[in-house]
Amino acid sequence: MAPNTPTPLISVDVAKKPWEQEKPLHNRWHPDIPPVETVKEGTLFRVETIDWTGGQIKDDDSSEDIKKVDLSQVHYLSGPIRVHDQEDNPALPGDILVVEICNLGALPGDEWGFTGTFDRDNGGGFLTDHFPEATKAVWHFDGIYAHSRHIPGVRFPGLIHPGLIGTAPSKELLDIWNTREKALVDEGENGITLGGVLHTRPLANLPTPTGACLGKVEKGAEWDRVAGEAARTVPGRENGGNCDIKNLSRGCKVYFPVFVEGANLSMGDMHFSQGDGEVSFCGAIEMSGFLELKVSILRGGMAQYLTPMGPTKLHVMPLFEIGPLEPRFSEWLVFEGISVDETGRQHFLDASVAYKRAVLNCIEYLAKFGYTKAQIYLLLSCCPCEGRISGIVDAPNACATLAIPIAIFDQDIRPKAGGPPVGPRLITRGDVAKSTYDGSLPVFKNPYPE
Amino acid sequence: MAPNTPTPLISVDVAKKPWEQEKPLHNRWHPDIPPVETVKEGTLFRVETIDWTGGQIKDDDSSEDIKKVDLSQVHYLSGPIRVHDQEDNPALPGDILVVEICNLGALPGDEWGFTGTFDRDNGGGFLTDHFPEATKAVWHFDGIYAHSRHIPGVRFPGLIHPGLIGTAPSKELLDIWNTREKALVDEGENGITLGGVLHTRPLANLPTPTGACLGKVEKGAEWDRVAGEAARTVPGRENGGNCDIKNLSRGCKVYFPVFVEGANLSMGDMHFSQGDGEVSFCGAIEMSGFLELKVSILRGGMAQYLTPMGPTKLHVMPLFEIGPLEPRFSEWLVFEGISVDETGRQHFLDASVAYKRAVLNCIEYLAKFGYTKAQIYLLLSCCPCEGRISGIVDAPNACATLAIPIAIFDQDIRPKAGGPPVGPRLITRGDVAKSTYDGSLPVFKNPYPE
Amino acid sequence: MAPNTPTPLISVDVAKKPWEQEKPLHNRWHPDIPPVETVKEGTLFRVETIDWTGGQIKDDDSSEDIKKVDLSQVHYLSGPIRVHDQEDNPALPGDILVVEICNLGALPGDEWGFTGTFDRDNGGGFLTDHFPEATKAVWHFDGIYAHSRHIPGVRFPGLIHPGLIGTAPSKELLDIWNTREKALVDEGENGITLGGVLHTRPLANLPTPTGACLGKVEKGAEWDRVAGEAARTVPGRENGGNCDIKNLSRGCKVYFPVFVEGANLSMGDMHFSQGDGEVSFCGAIEMSGFLELKVSILRGGMAQYLTPMGPTKLHVMPLFEIGPLEPRFSEWLVFEGISVDETGRQHFLDASVAYKRAVLNCIEYLAKFGYTKAQIYLLLSCCPCEGRISGIVDAPNACATLAIPIAIFDQDIRPKAGGPPVGPRLITRGDVAKSTYDGSLPVFKNPYPE
Amino acid sequence: MAPNTPTPLISVDVAKKPWEQEKPLHNRWHPDIPPVETVKEGTLFRVETIDWTGGQIKDDDSSEDIKKVDLSQVHYLSGPIRVHDQEDNPALPGDILVVEICNLGALPGDEWGFTGTFDRDNGGGFLTDHFPEATKAVWHFDGIYAHSRHIPGVRFPGLIHPGLIGTAPSKELLDIWNTREKALVDEGENGITLGGVLHTRPLANLPTPTGACLGKVEKGAEWDRVAGEAARTVPGRENGGNCDIKNLSRGCKVYFPVFVEGANLSMGDMHFSQGDGEVSFCGAIEMSGFLELKVSILRGGMAQYLTPMGPTKLHVMPLFEIGPLEPRFSEWLVFEGISVDETGRQHFLDASVAYKRAVLNCIEYLAKFGYTKAQIYLLLSCCPCEGRISGIVDAPNACATLAIPIAIFDQDIRPKAGGPPVGPRLITRGDVAKSTYDGSLPVFKNPYPE
Repeated sequence: MAPNTPTPLISVDVAKKPWEQEKPLHNRWHPDIPPVETVKEGTLFRVETIDWTGGQIKDDDSSEDIKKVDLSQVHYLSGPIRVHDQEDNPALPGDILVVEICNLGALPGDEWGFTGTFDRDNGGGFLTDHFPEATKAVWHFDGIYAHSRHIPGVRFPGLIHPGLIGTAPSKELLDIWNTREKALVDEGENGITLGGVLHTRPLANLPTPTGACLGKVEKGAEWDRVAGEAARTVPGRENGGNCDIKNLSRGCKVYFPVFVEGANLSMGDMHFSQGDGEVSFCGAIEMSGFLELKVSILRGGMAQYLTPMGPTKLHVMPLFEIGPLEPRFSEWLVFEGISVDETGRQHFLDASVAYKRAVLNCIEYLAKFGYTKAQIYLLLSCCPCEGRISGIVDAPNACATLAIPIAIFDQDIRPKAGGPPVGPRLITRGDVAKSTYDGSLPVFKNPYPE
Repeated sequence: MAPNTPTPLISVDVAKKPWEQEKPLHNRWHPDIPPVETVKEGTLFRVETIDWTGGQIKDDDSSEDIKKVDLSQVHYLSGPIRVHDQEDNPALPGDILVVEICNLGALPGDEWGFTGTFDRDNGGGFLTDHFPEATKAVWHFDGIYAHSRHIPGVRFPGLIHPGLIGTAPSKELLDIWNTREKALVDEGENGITLGGVLHTRPLANLPTPTGACLGKVEKGAEWDRVAGEAARTVPGRENGGNCDIKNLSRGCKVYFPVFVEGANLSMGDMHFSQGDGEVSFCGAIEMSGFLELKVSILRGGMAQYLTPMGPTKLHVMPLFEIGPLEPRFSEWLVFEGISVDETGRQHFLDASVAYKRAVLNCIEYLAKFGYTKAQIYLLLSCCPCEGRISGIVDAPNACATLAIPIAIFDQDIRPKAGGPPVGPRLITRGDVAKSTYDGSLPVFKNPYPE
Repeated sequence: MAPNTPTPLISVDVAKKPWEQEKPLHNRWHPDIPPVETVKEGTLFRVETIDWTGGQIKDDDSSEDIKKVDLSQVHYLSGPIRVHDQEDNPALPGDILVVEICNLGALPGDEWGFTGTFDRDNGGGFLTDHFPEATKAVWHFDGIYAHSRHIPGVRFPGLIHPGLIGTAPSKELLDIWNTREKALVDEGENGITLGGVLHTRPLANLPTPTGACLGKVEKGAEWDRVAGEAARTVPGRENGGNCDIKNLSRGCKVYFPVFVEGANLSMGDMHFSQGDGEVSFCGAIEMSGFLELKVSILRGGMAQYLTPMGPTKLHVMPLFEIGPLEPRFSEWLVFEGISVDETGRQHFLDASVAYKRAVLNCIEYLAKFGYTKAQIYLLLSCCPCEGRISGIVDAPNACATLAIPIAIFDQDIRPKAGGPPVGPRLITRGDVAKSTYDGSLPVFKNPYPE
Repeated sequence: MAPNTPTPLISVDVAKKPWEQEKPLHNRWHPDIPPVETVKEGTLFRVETIDWTGGQIKDDDSSEDIKKVDLSQVHYLSGPIRVHDQEDNPALPGDILVVEICNLGALPGDEWGFTGTFDRDNGGGFLTDHFPEATKAVWHFDGIYAHSRHIPGVRFPGLIHPGLIGTAPSKELLDIWNTREKALVDEGENGITLGGVLHTRPLANLPTPTGACLGKVEKGAEWDRVAGEAARTVPGRENGGNCDIKNLSRGCKVYFPVFVEGANLSMGDMHFSQGDGEVSFCGAIEMSGFLELKVSILRGGMAQYLTPMGPTKLHVMPLFEIGPLEPRFSEWLVFEGISVDETGRQHFLDASVAYKRAVLNCIEYLAKFGYTKAQIYLLLSCCPCEGRISGIVDAPNACATLAIPIAIFDQDIRPKAGGPPVGPRLITRGDVAKSTYDGSLPVFKNPYPE
């Protein structure tokens, strides 16, 4: 082996169940989940991860698996990885852990992914009131490109990234999380109105042993304790976590706060591509994958660089530098939304409402080019579109924009005299055209009126 | 004159008051404000505009003018401009008006601008609870670059754009606006809680004759009627308006819905540069300026391309294509925010809270490099930073990001072992260094406890 | 006037002859041409220039003016400008003069330009053996965009730059130039074979009083002496000069060697856009224009940064940094050429032959899309295409490439199954389509057999 | 295996000699070298290649292997691959073969490469008169980044590409090559003067059985015949071949002419990164690697798109589209060269001389920042620098430019008041700093006076 081959730290076997992997995975955040590996500053190492559902979703033409997905057992993470410096001293609370993503990609032999919308009664998504059914699109990868027989006529290069990556919380930080999220659940007993919509789906997912996977924690009292305290992985938090930032890709450097000795870095939920917002929730192109990483330690970096914002010094956030190898697009079509909702009601500077309107406007527009609205909803969730907060001070309207790269479509989607094309859509790019599949989107039989 | 010199349609004299301009300006939206000019499809024409405050702010080292600004008389627009096709038939309701921004810039002899934060009691801004004082930074332009003696050590190329551009509303659309905004004001009689903060400042600005400027509307009963009905220009709406989208720059094409015969296009509030969100409210680099435009008409385009979202067919939004000439940055430092506010309280998928946290994190970070926080607040409002809605589905935390181009700073602002520099800041770029001014930010004497 | 308005240093009147301008122009390089203005380090100043032919070419549909152009009296430069530091000491030989191009553009009222090929007997061009006739294309500017009624169906944003900018040579450097260029002329008495083609047109243009314009040099013996010694402006040399580098645009910083006290900076020959190589010779979009500049002095910079390469310390070259505001293209079609000429003959690692082949391949290819070859020849000379030396070591073939941005065409010019379109070309972008002009290229009656 | 895993068509074992590989390689172009594999249009397939020297160069700190390299046995190619359409009909002469490079990279376990300059008596390079010794730099890959203990202080992302890829020539085309290259050798019996330098090294490499590797051609009379006719792989030609174009990377589409039934596509000589010109000859970062490809056939495409330039219809060249995933740099320092050579002698519009001067100017400049000139020579050969033909018509000086991305250096290499740094160079990026190696470049004991 050449001196610079990445050290294979954690491997997975996608043919096995999450709990059967050789190095045990975990799907909760807790300081007492023991590291499965130790790595030194400066070493190039390789970590493999399974997809976020742990293999529940198949490469087929039915959305039944999405409909019935078990969301209590998701976000299986590879790690924790303990980090030492060159002199073999561990990273310490108060340090910053610099993680450089040197490379990442699909696992050889598993070059596919999926995007879905969950059923409104099982997770839903940003537009669940408009799209209540479970749907699925399967994507195949031609090297850097993704294409789908379920959304024909588009193809785009991936901006591969881990949806979920972070350091372990300390017990103190974990308590802060559990306290504030429980307060939200209590406060919203009767649902919470967001952008004029009453949300009755779970406002936060509190610790639960159901579906918990805790790595090397031994079964018994210790397991029960940890399972009862450990934070769910759904939201991003002070430690990074499920931030779903699409630019954490090749060449990126992330600066994580360190809360426990060794830092205990974990990661998973890889995405081949994601749009800003990941609007459909199961929304990126979800896949298994690998990362090649290097880490280093900024001693005492938290006090130097990360100002707490909240009652404790733990109320900080990671920051990162973008890498030099993102796909390059020069032409974009941009949709606006303001904080007037789709019933015509005025909201006050609400960026969520404004972004929802921008997304809905885009869906309606692109549906004029031969797609179903559900196809576009999935597409916006996973293609390299950019969601911006353009103006947030011009009361009462926040203004959000959604920008779509024109080059991902086989058609010219710009407005033209005479209006959009009529008749069947044109499918000319890639070999999707040669498929015998009819190009429709798997939608679970809709129990809701349109 | 060469055949392709832009036709000078509307000129301004920045030495005169807004109401003294030769072609009368207007600062309200109303279908009955008569056009001041007519232009044909395909003609390249030039429009000049005064700054959004109508000359209230001076190029000096005091923020007293910002403190005392009269916000009832702002957003003076050049226009309306009536649009005809090649056969001299006007644009009609239901058409789309395509506006191509062929060029735009500062007015010769007036190459400067300003950024400010209003006093909390007179407009405020996105972070008014953190920065309640009136402050001001004056920017000078070196061709494509802006620099400020009040925020030394940064310089960046402008992405010039009109903060405010749009077509006239029909009476029916105007009524919709007035009704829904009044409902918001009524609903929020005791203030509105946004991101956990109670907002008691005006939730919306309803029609008022005070400060109204109505172009060619004749004084008398007609003036009084129009003034009593005409919409204020603060928010962006269905007609475009004050959307404050920083990418409406050179080479951009905007597709506006047409609501009245002739389209009646107006514009103003030019910005030399703005950050996504325009967080400080008076937040871009505000200036007078010129635009060179071409327009064309897509007959019947609204029904073809713009799907209404709301009770009427008028509930639509413009869309646009980005131009090919934006400043190019390759290295960015990115700050995250989640929907946990600065008191540590958990909010539910609130993108506004998440973006506020990202902005606050960035301010704290950059303040370690020799700036005051107020300087950074102004900087983030006007430099070419990008604000993204990165994840909006991972309950309970929305994740927003704010990306800053590293190249605008004279210093290397990346985290490094050893921490940020101490001692006086380095000011080495441009001629700011040679100024006798001390480089501090004009802040109106703070009536609030820190 | 605001404090930062560019100081108007040199103005021109395009309605006047070159020798009638208020501040006298010059079209030769000589240390004894006196400065017409002095400028201080740090001042933003404005310089206007006339087009390189001094107004010989008209905005019409005939190429007769190109056919009869007088090439002895071209390249009228604005300047020289003497440069002082903040303490009023002049730049000195051995310093580096840093020139920042803060902005530049077309002159208001003169927003057009031209591209041409000279007759083979009067200047010719890179492909003069293929295109011996005088031809012309006139371009009009829509703000950032250029389009031509003579080459319909293309439009592109300009990357405006001065074709010619440089510092004055010292007498010693001037003598070096005159000696080496005379040696070439002597050596090539019977022509020089370049890429297998015998070149009998002037190999270099030696000093001549004919057509000389010498600024403030007084008529008489002094004028005669200077005119007899002064270098022609055709080639780029150690002082910069006519380097025709298309990236010297907005935001660019050029580092010029200083050879005489005061540096004596001159400039002219502005281009709205140019392709790498400027293959047709009169090849950019030639125009009058303005520049807004700032200068500074690096004392002793030549010894620090510029290593001489040749017998004296004057054998140096400028260097520059590219600005942040170039047009952004993401899709390119690329043509290759190797050093086998169009007769099939093998040359040894000859980059000129390889580039000629790449250009010819591109012309043949694009001519399949409805253009004449002469139109494409002009287009490649002035559109933002990139010419690269890709491989120069794989004997016997150098490999050069020519990359064309796909977005400048109204048609999709990529290869497709079925071949290129047949029938009349499509002209759909901009208002060229609405012109009554037939879209053909003015070609002077061809005295040569095809 | 998932349906979209690339079909593994050709694998290599880098521990074996080139002639021991399972699927026989070849290092000559000849129509009668039989295909080793057949692939269908639309299939995603994977090809592995060994490095261009077939493993002659080692990852060590001596340049002895470069000094003694056997250049008769290089450019081992994987293939030929016969291409069929969906109906199993082969590509035919006159078609165009479209090759899409979907992905490519280093071989797992072999993540390193090398750059060298050959001894002047054994291959030399573009600047062999300045750098006559054999030198070597070994590069290790951190995912997308390359760094070298032999050139510390730089790091850059790769733009991986095959240096050599092409279709097989027909017998007729092969004869054309051999005839014209022999003519050059004959003509240059006493050397050829290029840019004022007499070249006595081989002007072209004519067919020779020495070192020939002919794939599945059977030993005996057939082998001897083919070996005696087959073209060497050094230069790029009508079939593509060793064009060394650095942009043939991820997402690129190449359009190759088809000269023999089945097209017979071969490839090898992969580069992790290369500068335009590949100036040091062994000049890219040379490595073994893999490609994931898709091919399709444009029936009759040669007549439709590729115009012959020369006496036969075979005198054509490939063309290509650039992919969307190239590294993104925004700041460049640019060096100029004109066709005056380093002795001060004037040449006539010679782009090779101009480019050589630009490269020499850059070497001298960067050597002021702590590097030896030999280090920079290697660096310019392999880093992502761009070499442009900027002006090629301003007699007598061609103007070439070489642009270097500033971000690849750990230091700020821009000119500054006070001059370049003195004292030891700063090595701060990556873990090179922590190496015990002293950072010097392996240079074979120099037999030439400096």
